[in-house]
Amino acid sequence: MASIQFSPGIDEVVVPDVRLTRSKSGTQGTATFIFDEPKALIDSDAEEITGMFMVDEEGQLSTREVKAKFVNGQPKALEGLYVMKSEEEWDRFMRFMERYAAEHDLGFNQA
Amino acid sequence: MASIQFSPGIDEVVVPDVRLTRSKSGTQGTATFIFDEPKALIDSDAEEITGMFMVDEEGQLSTREVKAKFVNGQPKALEGLYVMKSEEEWDRFMRFMERYAAEHDLGFNQA
Repeated sequence: MASIQFSPGIDEVVVPDVRLTRSKSGTQGTATFIFDEPKALIDSDAEEITGMFMVDEEGQLSTREVKAKFVNGQPKALEGLYVMKSEEEWDRFMRFMERYAAEHDLGFNQA
Repeated sequence: MASIQFSPGIDEVVVPDVRLTRSKSGTQGTATFIFDEPKALIDSDAEEITGMFMVDEEGQLSTREVKAKFVNGQPKALEGLYVMKSEEEWDRFMRFMERYAAEHDLGFNQA
């Protein structure tokens, strides 16, 4: 029930690595999603991808901060940055991640 | 402020991989912590390690389900299993993991 989309309605099948940072106060943080050779890059031109959408039973989180990484002129990876600015945004994001992680066999690992 | 201990008061310095499972209903789940060559095995005999304690600003979570893995007769790894049986236990555990992950540079990755 939890999925990530680069085009509304189309689930990305490649599962990302997700890096987390959090400020010492705990109120601000970032999540960086790295998709290696995502399907979205096959289906779309890199420049058409302007957002990343995290969809679950509670609704949708989104960010417009998506970059393509190029190797030898070819887009190879997508990197999405999601910024959280309050405890509530963290909690909501983590509820999404718990669902997504459980469905896609993600665990916590040191990078 | 978030740490894992095998002996009360002594933080384990090795950072584990953590695998998560969750039931479809979302109410039950497990977290399996795998510590490769943890300091606790240098400081203690494997048979003395009878619990894993997750300590943060809210208090302490613990499990007695800790196993040592042996290679050629030597203990090489510790595996702790933490079982959650309600939404509340999940939420509490994830608050610990968010803190621990942010302090120890853990992210979400596929195993």
